[in-house]
This record gives sequence, C-alpha cells and structure tokens, in this order.
Amino acid sequence: MTHGSPTRYEQLADDMAQAIREGLLEAGDRLPSVRETCQRRGVSPSTVFQAYGLLEARGLIEARPRSGYYVRAPRRASRLLPEAAVPQAEASRVAVSALAFEILESTRVPEVVPLGSAFPAPHLFPLEELARAGARAMRRLRPEQITTALTVGDEGLRQALRKRYALQGVPLAADELVIANGAMEALNLCLQAVTQPGDIVVVESPTFYACLQALERLNLRAVEVATDPREGVVLSDLERLLGQHQVAACWFMPNFQNPLGALMPLERKRELVDLLAKHSVPLIEDDVYGELYAHARRPPPAKAFDRSGGVMHCASFSKCLAPGYRVGWAAAGRYATDVLRLKMMTSLATSVPPQLAIAEYLAQGTYDRHLRQLRSALAAEQHRVRRLIERHFPAGTRVTLPAGGYFLWLEMPPGVDALDLHHRAMALGISTAPGVLFSADRRFVHHLRLNVGYPGDARVDPALRQLGKLAASMA
Amino acid sequence: MTHGSPTRYEQLADDMAQAIREGLLEAGDRLPSVRETCQRRGVSPSTVFQAYGLLEARGLIEARPRSGYYVRAPRRASRLLPEAAVPQAEASRVAVSALAFEILESTRVPEVVPLGSAFPAPHLFPLEELARAGARAMRRLRPEQITTALTVGDEGLRQALRKRYALQGVPLAADELVIANGAMEALNLCLQAVTQPGDIVVVESPTFYACLQALERLNLRAVEVATDPREGVVLSDLERLLGQHQVAACWFMPNFQNPLGALMPLERKRELVDLLAKHSVPLIEDDVYGELYAHARRPPPAKAFDRSGGVMHCASFSKCLAPGYRVGWAAAGRYATDVLRLKMMTSLATSVPPQLAIAEYLAQGTYDRHLRQLRSALAAEQHRVRRLIERHFPAGTRVTLPAGGYFLWLEMPPGVDALDLHHRAMALGISTAPGVLFSADRRFVHHLRLNVGYPGDARVDPALRQLGKLAASMA
Repeated sequence: MTHGSPTRYEQLADDMAQAIREGLLEAGDRLPSVRETCQRRGVSPSTVFQAYGLLEARGLIEARPRSGYYVRAPRRASRLLPEAAVPQAEASRVAVSALAFEILESTRVPEVVPLGSAFPAPHLFPLEELARAGARAMRRLRPEQITTALTVGDEGLRQALRKRYALQGVPLAADELVIANGAMEALNLCLQAVTQPGDIVVVESPTFYACLQALERLNLRAVEVATDPREGVVLSDLERLLGQHQVAACWFMPNFQNPLGALMPLERKRELVDLLAKHSVPLIEDDVYGELYAHARRPPPAKAFDRSGGVMHCASFSKCLAPGYRVGWAAAGRYATDVLRLKMMTSLATSVPPQLAIAEYLAQGTYDRHLRQLRSALAAEQHRVRRLIERHFPAGTRVTLPAGGYFLWLEMPPGVDALDLHHRAMALGISTAPGVLFSADRRFVHHLRLNVGYPGDARVDPALRQLGKLAASMA
Repeated sequence: MTHGSPTRYEQLADDMAQAIREGLLEAGDRLPSVRETCQRRGVSPSTVFQAYGLLEARGLIEARPRSGYYVRAPRRASRLLPEAAVPQAEASRVAVSALAFEILESTRVPEVVPLGSAFPAPHLFPLEELARAGARAMRRLRPEQITTALTVGDEGLRQALRKRYALQGVPLAADELVIANGAMEALNLCLQAVTQPGDIVVVESPTFYACLQALERLNLRAVEVATDPREGVVLSDLERLLGQHQVAACWFMPNFQNPLGALMPLERKRELVDLLAKHSVPLIEDDVYGELYAHARRPPPAKAFDRSGGVMHCASFSKCLAPGYRVGWAAAGRYATDVLRLKMMTSLATSVPPQLAIAEYLAQGTYDRHLRQLRSALAAEQHRVRRLIERHFPAGTRVTLPAGGYFLWLEMPPGVDALDLHHRAMALGISTAPGVLFSADRRFVHHLRLNVGYPGDARVDPALRQLGKLAASMA
C-alpha cells in the first residue's frame, strides 16, 4: 500500500473543512464539482469522491441527488463537539475497576437497555455462518493441531491474518503475530512485556477504562495526554510529556478511539510513530474498531508506519465479526517473543475451536460483505441516535461526530453529574457509561459514552428519551 | 459425601503398607483374606477391597487369581522411589521460563517424541464427539448468550460443573465459580488475587514449572516445602515455614502432583486445610489431574474440606477431556469476586463456543465412560513405561509409582546431569522435562519428568531405549 493516495484525499478534505470553518464556504454553498476539483488539484476523481465522503461523514457537507455537494447548515449548539480535555500533568495510580465491573455486570441482565455496553448488538454478527464454519473446521481437525497451536495460535488463522494485513498495506513478520484470548488479553500481555511496576504509561484523555484497569492491575501509573475529540492524541502535548517523564509505553487507539471516536489523520500517525521511535518508547496500539469505518476505506493502523518494531499492534474479531469467540492478536514487533512467553505464562494458549471457526469463515470469502453491512448499519444508527440526542437532551449538550465505531461521547451542561445520571438511569433499567470511568483522576464528570450499536432495538428510543429527560431535570 | 468410608480404607491400606515397610509382612506372604480382615477390623468388605486395590496400585501387593493377595517381591533398586527433597529455607526469586519456553516450543514439532510434553496424546480424547456436540450447541446459540456469559462464564456449563462437584461431595457456592481460559489462567488469577509483588508463596518441591513462572511474572518469591513423592506436602515442614515466614499463599497440587504424581491422603488434606485456615493463608489448589486416578475412586480435592472459603480450587478439561479447548475454572471461595474482577481486567471473558461444546458433551452422559477408558489406558501405559525404564536406564535410577496422572519422575545416578541429557536427547528428536525446570533454585539436577500419556505411539519404546542408553553413558 502506498500511503500517497489516502494522504491526498485527507489533505483535500482537510483543506475544504478549513475553508468551511473559516467561513470561506458558507451553509448552502455548492462545492466545486468533482471534475473541476480534479483539474484544479491535479487529483483523480476517486480522490475527490473519497474526500467528499469524508466531509459528509463529518457532517460538514451533504450530497443532494443529481445536484452535487453542498455545505450544511451550521450545527446547533448541541451539535458542537466536546472540548479537548486538558489533563493533569501528574501521574496517577488508577482505580476505576469497581465501577467498570458494576456496569459490565449490568449488561449481563437482558432487561437492561445496553446504552453502556461496550459491544454492538449480537444480532449484527453472522453467528450462524460462523457456527457452520466452525462445525466444518472441527470435522477436519487433526488431533496434533491441538499441540501445534500451543501458545502462538493456529497456523491457518495466523496466515489468514497476515494476508489480510498485507492486503491493507501492513506487512507483518511471520513470527510477530501471537493469537490471544481477545484483544484485551493481547493488550495486557503487551503492556506487561514493556513495563515494570511503578512505571509511567501515557494514555489518552479520556481513555478506555480497560486500559486504566490494566494499568491498575500491573501497578503502573497513568499520565494522560491531551486528545482531540476529532483527531486524537495531540502530538505537541505528547512531546512535552515525553520530555517531562520517563515514559515506559504509550497505549493509544488511533482509529475510532473509545470513547471519543477520534480518528488520527494518517500523517499524524506517521509522526506519532516517528516521535516514539525517536524516544525509544513502545506504542501499544489498540485497533479493535479499525474495520468499523464510516467512510471510503479502512484507515491504516499506526503499525503501518512502524520501521523499528516499536509498535505493538493489537486487534480482535470481537467487535467486527465474532463477539464471544474471544479471538484477538498482537503483532508485537520486536517484543513478540516477550509477549509469546507471557502468553504461555498467563493462559498457555488460546482456545483452538474458535480460531479454526474464524479461519474457515475467512476462507469462504464473505467477511467483507458482512463488514459492509455492519458498517452501514452502525453509521445509519449513529446518525439516527445523534438526532434523538439533539431532540431529547438539554440545550448545551455537545456530542461527538465519529467517523467510525459505535460510540457517541456526550458533554452535558455543568449541572449534570453523569455518575448520578447513570445511577438514576439504572434504576429505570437503562445502562450508560459515565465519563468518570474514562479517566484515572475522575474527570469527565458531565460526560457520558453511549453505545449506538443497537439498530432496530425498539427499547433504544424510549430509553434515550428518558435519559434526556433525566439529564434535563438535572441541568 | 461422607468422608468416613475413604478414611477407613486409606487407614487400612496405610496400616498394611506400614507393616510391609517394617518387614512384618514379607515378600510372598499371603495377606489376610477379605473376610478375616472385615471381622478383625470391623469394616465392610468393600472397604477391604478398596484398601487392597490401593496397595496394589502402589505396587506393594499383587492379586493372584483364585488365591488371594500377596506381598510383592522387594523392588529392585531402580524401583525405589526418589527421596523427598530437602528444600532450601530461603525465599528465592524464580526464573525458569526460558527453559520451559524452549521445551514447550519443541512439543510443537510433530517429529519430536514428546516425552517432555505436559499433555497426553490428543488421540486419547473424544475430539470428534466434542466437535459434534459443539456444532449442536452452536446451532441453538441465542445471540444474547454472548453477553450473559461475559466474564463469569456460560451459565449452563457452570451449572453442570456444580452438579458434578456436588455428586463428588464438594458443594460449590453458586457465585464462587468463574470459568477461565484453562486452569492456567484460573491459577494465575487466583494467585494475583491474594498477593502483592514481593510476597512469599509456598510451593511444593519439586514444583510444576508453570507455578514458578506465575510467581516470576508477578514478582513473587517462592519458598519450597518438603514434598513426599508418595504423599505430597509434608505438613510438619509446612507448619515450620508458616512460623518462619509471612506467607501470602500456598500453591499445591494435592492430587497427582506434577511432577511427582504424589497423592495426599484424605486426612492429610483435611489437616492441610485446617492448618492454613488457622494461619489465614489461602490455598491455591491445582486439581487438573484429579479425574485421572488409577484406583477405586476420585480422590476428593482439598476444597472438599474448606469451611472458611480459603481454598481457591482450580481445574480444567484440558487434561481429561478437551485439550486445546482451554476451558478451566476457579472455585475461589471468599476470593471469588476478586478473581472475577481480575478476569474482567485480564481477558474479559472465556470463549463461548468451547464452553457450550463441553456443556453439551457433558449433558449427553458419555463423559464418565470416556474417563474410565482414559484412566485405564494411562495406568497401563505407566506400568509398561516403568518396566522399560527399569530395563534401559542405568542401575541406581529411582522412579515414582504414582496412583494417577501420566507423569513419572526419575532420580538418576549422581553422574547424570539431566539438563545435559535433555539437550543430547533433543539432538536425537526426543524431548524430556529436566528436573531443574521444577525448582526455583535449580535443584533436581539428576531428575527427569517423563510423560507416559502416549500409549500406542510406536516411537516411545525406541526413544526410551535411546534415552536410557544416553543416561547410562553419562552415569
């Protein structure tokens, strides 16, 4: 994969967005036609289509049938993005697991509306097809596959993954890929491979709570880096932290960060990898949402720019194909052997039947069709839920506009304590993920992560209405 | 389950064994008839049969058809049991993982004769039946089972396990059972739940290397307790250690200890649990071989005597039913919530399809039949391999006589360095597990663990012959 083409379309989109922000292009203005833009910028039509698709996903422009692209009306206040947070400079020991645990437990109760859940609706996944693929694969199981899969994982699945990455322009070395019990285990193993108790790890702000839990479990200290709700980690802030602290590792989600949904632009990923290589700091890259993009193509992971083996790339099938199968992996660069040893010491190996089921499913060639359907369902639902939030939540509520994934991040007016709101909502049978979960030092008290991965669930609309009403009563 | 009956038969067997050891009963002596013994001791015939069966399994007596039971000829020197080790009193940091890793990797190579492997031959397991059960279960999967199984495990499997334990006389509380990614993960979670870095953990001597690795990974210190090759942990030595050290936990295998094969007598288990309860020290019980007994019935786990919730019982299906499925569990007593939280933080949940496959297999009612066949195959192979060792290994080699499991532990003459032997054997395509793997302070240099779980594998006999020849050349 050459990264020139995505760079061009992102660059083009950025230029247009800049023009819209600066008022050079106003609401209702028709954008230059695709042909015009091609000529003017010296790019191909597909580059322009991609750029316009990205701007559309960001809500900046809209396509009108047989007419062209138009700048959208300025967003209402409630459509403003949440502000980038300014984290504390101090390293903090973390303890968020009790609350995370309570919320996870609540998602086990089928009656609770799962707006706080970390997974999309199970019915979105081809569970029957997977089961059939698994049955076929298991019929062919040679008993010795049990031992050859020990620790590193099933060879067929590893080959299929390497092929998939190669097609996405990310060549993985044969021996850097370790299959794990979900991305969660992969991330934990990577973290332990490069840290000692007491070490400092830079995390995003807000951060996925499982990252904070992993730090907690290993007695590590978190330093939060400023993170833009749209474009992810602010590199200038990261550079400052790298100068101030002895940093053992960074744990980031460059694609559709949880909870913000932020997508690091391609060039910024490259700069991130170079910056960390310069400081000899490993990057633990959580890329579990990478396949769930809303625009033209899969954003490459930071791993695509890794020349020194310092990026420990982790992902899984749990969010895009096979929840409950717990099949994830780490492509851990120069730390791969350490990760493999830790895997052996932690859980010995990953269950073989689910690996074979997924390898068989991948071989039948319907994965990409499934992904297209899934992406489109999630994008439509995000759009729908954002409108409901605008309608039901108190004025002044800001909400993200992610270009992928299935989370929205809300910043509610100062009067609304999100943890309080969470408890009141739970009393009504609605789970949410309050903002304090996503910070080592209990910031984001007015923030809420909402799962928009339940299209077609009739309970979502009334739940959002109730939630908005509750929030309004507290504002 | 009342524990009176097994106590009586074990007591009876112990009395007889004592009499044989002391020379009161000599080789060739006919034992009192079952009827006589019933009258003399006031016990039932079945108690006597069980006691005699146990003595037979221990190699002390033999049945002669239509004649009765006779004391066996004194064992040759090579049949002597290895001595109980006298461990160092000091706590040591452990580092055995590099060697363990190398040996595990070697077992992935199908051409290597797996005498060093930790698993029995895959063909001993009903892999096809399991696959069919899995396919049936997955066809019935309700998507929401994916989320209800989160972290704690599939409800159906948990119920089936509790039922099985109840039938074995070990009642488990509904909420103390957590499904894990194999016993290995369960043990690791339990260990982390009750320790902090730097803490002291008492382990057997020799110890299963995965236990040493787990300690290494969590920066814990190991203190080894004297362990009898026949009857396991020496309680007087444990009591001494509990007085000398601030002990955070004990990690023991009371049933068919790896590598010794030692089986703690029932009463001693009770005393162990009481002793630890008195000192408020949790017991992490690794019971993965409990189902692989060679005599009358399953020896109860230490968990059977747990009244204070201090026993964290761990087991799995990996050694007795479904290798490669990585389905294990912890019944973690009063630490169950901590273990569950750590599970959530480490790998979130255990793969659902293998859990459903095993639950479905258990429901069809053929598990116990499979176990009977497996036990009988392993016992016969143990017997066969012991004879080969007697024949091929140098004079002065001692070998254990386990009452279950599929390992033999050899103590070779002082001239034989087992690690050296291991490397020379690997050059011939034969793996072994040298004794240094099983100690934090690299003792057991003349010792070897051999896997006798490959009945019917034509490579075993020539490999044992070669191995014996190598050892003899080094003696």
